[in-house]
Amino acid sequence: MRAITIVEDHLEVAERPVPEPAADGVVVRVHGAGLNRADLLQRAGRYPAPPGVPADIPGMEFSGVVAAIGANVAASADAPAVGDRVFGITGGGAQAEYVAVPAVHCAPVPANLDLVAMGGVPEAFLTAHDAMVTQAHVVAGEWVLVHAVGSGVGTAALQLAQALGARVVGTARTADKIERCRALGLDAGVEPPRTAGGALDVDALAWAIVEATDGGAHVTLDLVGGDYVIADVNAAAPKGRIVCIGMMAGSQATLPLSSILAKRLTLVGTVLRTRDVEEKASATDAFVRDVVPLLAEERIAPVVEATIPLAQAEEAYSLLASDTTFGKVILDCR
Amino acid sequence: MRAITIVEDHLEVAERPVPEPAADGVVVRVHGAGLNRADLLQRAGRYPAPPGVPADIPGMEFSGVVAAIGANVAASADAPAVGDRVFGITGGGAQAEYVAVPAVHCAPVPANLDLVAMGGVPEAFLTAHDAMVTQAHVVAGEWVLVHAVGSGVGTAALQLAQALGARVVGTARTADKIERCRALGLDAGVEPPRTAGGALDVDALAWAIVEATDGGAHVTLDLVGGDYVIADVNAAAPKGRIVCIGMMAGSQATLPLSSILAKRLTLVGTVLRTRDVEEKASATDAFVRDVVPLLAEERIAPVVEATIPLAQAEEAYSLLASDTTFGKVILDCR
Repeated sequence: MRAITIVEDHLEVAERPVPEPAADGVVVRVHGAGLNRADLLQRAGRYPAPPGVPADIPGMEFSGVVAAIGANVAASADAPAVGDRVFGITGGGAQAEYVAVPAVHCAPVPANLDLVAMGGVPEAFLTAHDAMVTQAHVVAGEWVLVHAVGSGVGTAALQLAQALGARVVGTARTADKIERCRALGLDAGVEPPRTAGGALDVDALAWAIVEATDGGAHVTLDLVGGDYVIADVNAAAPKGRIVCIGMMAGSQATLPLSSILAKRLTLVGTVLRTRDVEEKASATDAFVRDVVPLLAEERIAPVVEATIPLAQAEEAYSLLASDTTFGKVILDCR
Repeated sequence: MRAITIVEDHLEVAERPVPEPAADGVVVRVHGAGLNRADLLQRAGRYPAPPGVPADIPGMEFSGVVAAIGANVAASADAPAVGDRVFGITGGGAQAEYVAVPAVHCAPVPANLDLVAMGGVPEAFLTAHDAMVTQAHVVAGEWVLVHAVGSGVGTAALQLAQALGARVVGTARTADKIERCRALGLDAGVEPPRTAGGALDVDALAWAIVEATDGGAHVTLDLVGGDYVIADVNAAAPKGRIVCIGMMAGSQATLPLSSILAKRLTLVGTVLRTRDVEEKASATDAFVRDVVPLLAEERIAPVVEATIPLAQAEEAYSLLASDTTFGKVILDCR
């Protein structure tokens, strides 16, 4: 099979053997494999793949058709069968013609949905759902703050929050991205204010969010990290929950403990990739229960910037790295 | 009645009218009223009392005998009656001969327990229980890190954690306090290491905790704040929960988001005093359910440094401020 491989700091299309399914696993003929920022880190050698997945084939999400199943899979009733359309997350290896994954990480793809596009759904929507619902317990009527709202996770969080009856204030670095998010239901958009020196104006950002939400955000999805987290704390409503899922802007933040105590905030750090098989299965179950029906009803949908053939992976990575994308970049692996 | 009052930055014993019970409230003839660090802040003008309690009479916990009940109290079955022995928390006003509180904030004092000493129980044990159980969901076998383990909240947390089957690593600034905590069941004690310049050696503290716990603390109760929170993050086990309930050492902390994400930590800030009546009632219910039975069985008990008559409140405050106390300082208000 053809697979994207990381050779030093660039990508090559290599020929590899088709993987065999593990006893509890399946092999999926990949149709779509979404790109994620973690892939850029992995290509740069700064985010090695976890044990149990190919070390040099990137790809943390897939959609496709089950091509083979392991010895123990047929036995269980809900298990995927050969020919089923499925999608899900994986620790790596999805940017190839075939990927081997645990059967419990496969969710069924509704018949009305485009299979390649669904390859850009699992990572963003599972991350957004896990953060907002499983960890932050968002409820209808609350304000959700989503940084980088024009990103894959951002547009997923925006749509899910809307579907759950929450209101969304989002930040994005261009007015154009905010405008496009308004079409997806964004209630309020903020371009992060800058100081005269060009740095993030943390206080002004926090005030803009407090104003937009008339008192503060109940739930925050922070994909950015660094000083944004200070603004998250200062812009949070009492008993607010802040979920940190990225650190593009920096891996440290000097936080006001006084606000964290006085407002009784909860700050949660989370990452999907390193979770064990059972935890990923549980997150997949929640995705099947809460997210897949909304996809099937077409109340939510992946926002796709581009679908690019597997052979042009380097171009796809460059596009994502340009920071000009709106939504997902997906590799077509057919 | 006699009441401690804050006049500028010192205390005076003043004569005040005995309060009337609110419709849903009771008036308690106070026997014991524990001192808390927040009282020192309030005396210094830096922690004003919340609305609904006397602005100038300190005192956030009480034990005593119900002296009068409000019009709506008799109607309900579980309600306290005149003559009942009770204890609980309040936003202020407990350091007096009488205090008016909502009936739902009164917990019954078991017959075998010394009523004055019980005046040092509610704030410490409610805080420790709420943090460790309600917020951090500690389970048997886990390691709990308690800073300032020789304090009122520290000794309460230590005993509660032991009773719940958890193991405790505690920090204290003197070997003597650690030794005395060992007698209460402390599994491991750490004197916070200092750098050559005398500052907290954050890395060394984190390592000492990781070593003592063989991999990190699952739950942390941080009464100290400042750089201690950095050590908490670095010393936490994967999926660890850190509850911040004090800031004596500083109101800011530069936290490693990378560790918070990679270990999937939860950091919670909490404070009891500003919660509304319903939330305090709910915390009181949890205290009645989980803590009072352990007190009745004498499996746990308040650690009392000194019991000092109401008239000598200034001396009691000085003793608490000296930082040499082990456990609680209680005013005898009889």
